[in-house]
Amino acid sequence: MDNPLADIEQYLEGHREAFEDDLCQLLSIPSVSADSRHRPDVRRAAEWMRDEFARMGLEPRLIETDGQPLVYAETPAVPGAPTVLVYGHYDVQPPDPLDQWISPPFQPTRRNGNIYARGATDDKGQMLTHVKSAQAWLAVRGRLPVQLKFLIEGEEEVGSKALQKYLETPAADHLACNAVVVSDTSQFGPNQPAITYGLRGIAYFELHVKGPKQDLHSGTFGGGVTNPANVLAKLLAALTDDHGRVQVPGFYDDVRPLSAQERESLAKLPFDEQQFQRQLGVNGLHGESGYSTLERRWTRPTCDVHGVWGGYQGEGGKTILPARAAAKFSCRLVPDQDPVKIAAAIRQFLEDRKPPGVEIELIYMSGAPGIVVPLDSPSIQAAARAIEHGFGRSPCLIREGGSIPIVMQFSKRLKADALLLGWGLDDDNTHSPNEKFHLADFHRGIKASAWLWHELAAG
Amino acid sequence: MDNPLADIEQYLEGHREAFEDDLCQLLSIPSVSADSRHRPDVRRAAEWMRDEFARMGLEPRLIETDGQPLVYAETPAVPGAPTVLVYGHYDVQPPDPLDQWISPPFQPTRRNGNIYARGATDDKGQMLTHVKSAQAWLAVRGRLPVQLKFLIEGEEEVGSKALQKYLETPAADHLACNAVVVSDTSQFGPNQPAITYGLRGIAYFELHVKGPKQDLHSGTFGGGVTNPANVLAKLLAALTDDHGRVQVPGFYDDVRPLSAQERESLAKLPFDEQQFQRQLGVNGLHGESGYSTLERRWTRPTCDVHGVWGGYQGEGGKTILPARAAAKFSCRLVPDQDPVKIAAAIRQFLEDRKPPGVEIELIYMSGAPGIVVPLDSPSIQAAARAIEHGFGRSPCLIREGGSIPIVMQFSKRLKADALLLGWGLDDDNTHSPNEKFHLADFHRGIKASAWLWHELAAG
Repeated sequence: MDNPLADIEQYLEGHREAFEDDLCQLLSIPSVSADSRHRPDVRRAAEWMRDEFARMGLEPRLIETDGQPLVYAETPAVPGAPTVLVYGHYDVQPPDPLDQWISPPFQPTRRNGNIYARGATDDKGQMLTHVKSAQAWLAVRGRLPVQLKFLIEGEEEVGSKALQKYLETPAADHLACNAVVVSDTSQFGPNQPAITYGLRGIAYFELHVKGPKQDLHSGTFGGGVTNPANVLAKLLAALTDDHGRVQVPGFYDDVRPLSAQERESLAKLPFDEQQFQRQLGVNGLHGESGYSTLERRWTRPTCDVHGVWGGYQGEGGKTILPARAAAKFSCRLVPDQDPVKIAAAIRQFLEDRKPPGVEIELIYMSGAPGIVVPLDSPSIQAAARAIEHGFGRSPCLIREGGSIPIVMQFSKRLKADALLLGWGLDDDNTHSPNEKFHLADFHRGIKASAWLWHELAAG
Repeated sequence: MDNPLADIEQYLEGHREAFEDDLCQLLSIPSVSADSRHRPDVRRAAEWMRDEFARMGLEPRLIETDGQPLVYAETPAVPGAPTVLVYGHYDVQPPDPLDQWISPPFQPTRRNGNIYARGATDDKGQMLTHVKSAQAWLAVRGRLPVQLKFLIEGEEEVGSKALQKYLETPAADHLACNAVVVSDTSQFGPNQPAITYGLRGIAYFELHVKGPKQDLHSGTFGGGVTNPANVLAKLLAALTDDHGRVQVPGFYDDVRPLSAQERESLAKLPFDEQQFQRQLGVNGLHGESGYSTLERRWTRPTCDVHGVWGGYQGEGGKTILPARAAAKFSCRLVPDQDPVKIAAAIRQFLEDRKPPGVEIELIYMSGAPGIVVPLDSPSIQAAARAIEHGFGRSPCLIREGGSIPIVMQFSKRLKADALLLGWGLDDDNTHSPNEKFHLADFHRGIKASAWLWHELAAG
């Protein structure tokens, strides 16, 4: 049988190096959205994306917001064929701790068949696969078989507030589409591509405990005065039991139970706990009783502390009763938990446990519900065929523990199927030092994407 | 009645400014013993002390140790009169947090009748009162009525290890004395001097919890992997109940109960809880049930967290499961608790609570038992008379919650009465920003000290 995309595939083959060079350009921009010092860099990344679309012959525009701009570009409408929104983000996580990077986070470095840089997989590398596949179609055929609408934002790592706000306005009507494609997840394993049909939500908090007006001598005052650092430990500890089950009343009320069928399907996935432990460098796994490790990571809510600070952190032994202590923590959520309801329950839970002599402040920083997308849509079937072309292997169907809050809002606002097509790997070190993207997966992702437009048009 | 110390008092009166200037010189040296970057500064403070004794006509020497040198100087023996060891320290606590100081910690500044600087009261200012009173006696009379042996160390704030080691050697025999005078505590209140007859001990720890080899994405891994920051919170929280009572088995076994008489005497002290709260800026006090605030601060053991750190502490919301988290904490101890035994019990307690998937490391950094000194010795009576001369008011008898571990070792090694004569105030901000020493108390302390040598000689 003739390969209907032989010309496109030949273009992709001939442009591997050029594609990688373009990726390196984008990865060199330290577009850290969580750090206000990097604000100009984040904007530079937006401008690079705009210029990239212009180089493809499109007419991109920056949609200005209160925060970072949205980059928008579209290809011509194709009567009778679906319209596809491609969503991605050009911002990245902070690179700390810097001293653990082998090569600097914003000097993209090719090593062991990977490209190392902050954002390599999350999400610059993955997002760019769809841009490059469109570039190929446009260069070879002058048109795409479906209409593509690219929407690339710059605040995904800090809660997508500007985009969420934009989606609530009538101006966002131009995003109307039949499917939303997002590549910001992982394959199930090396050379085992996957379609992700579920994501966890999140409710993210910062908790401050404030005691005396300044640090006190722990000898003179200890025992007499409430210690904010002790209180912080007690409050964080109270949130979960010793197996990580959340203790906040009502927390599990709206959790949709796993079906026997889904548990069976998850149990069949080839997951090696020993290898998983070795990969992470831990001597044991631990979590909510009654659930497998995959179930705990993908389908169960959590409460994890992300950072704690307060008092003396220097060398030696300073004997103070610190005036304040604080933590960042979040709950991963699953359908049908409501982040706003969860935040209210946590606030009440903490207030109820506040001893005399301290004040607490709970900041609800961002939230999004979890989602599970239907498996029986034609677009999921088209994606499965496209991935088989790109990766030479049919994808397995998985859920993922991370959150892409905006996906939930797209599906609500645009009434479109969400296609979560992850080209990354679990050991890509997203949000960690030495983030990487396997270059073979970058090119396989581009190929799968090129086929996706073809398969979606075929219906 | 003629004032037998009229000539000495006149000298003190005429040298107030000179004494303050000398204090400022010493306070300008950032002799932070906990911070290795300040090692040369700590030594400079030792050399300043040595030069100070030389200016008085003594023949001081630096006793070298593994750490910072001990400064030693003595006045001639006085046959038939007691020998008094004056102990103090020339090192200071770290000045953090720097941004809360009104004037820089190592630029001594006179303001509101106080001198502001790190070490102003703890212990440079208080220690210097005895040096200046000796200077006065030597200048006016050419001799002292008792023999004084000054021993000023440079590692009090980090556990006095070098001095403790020195005291165990035969070389320390030259310190033989009848009483040890230490001014490193506080008055009971403004213009209410006190003799401190009890101090709490301490066992100081650093706790590290180590999980995966690097920070992980809390979405992808949360729920599946033990979170070291959650574990740290749980371990710290488990150490005490909600009222601060320590939960480690055996912790209270050796605590000497308070006598009814002592409780009565403590209850009679004029202590205003409302004013205490206002002074600290807290809206309530809280602690072990069944004990008054003073009892909790002076006579009951504690467990206080001094600092916590781990994971992301920056701006915004980073979603990691941190690879490690750590804390500094200590237990204040009372007679007859043994710090080594307490450390072993805490180690066991924490190991017993360690979940799979993390390692914990408990570092026992330093320890000392608490003490209570006898009230019926002639030297206590002499000190009471001297304080009445210096402050115009007889002292009350108190305990204090802080620890001067070395005092315990002196009393063991030298079989001498300990005289804890505090010239400071509770609101001097020891170990906190804006540490100060009331200048009137500096001069009253010098006067009381000058009288002390006289009264001790009178017997």
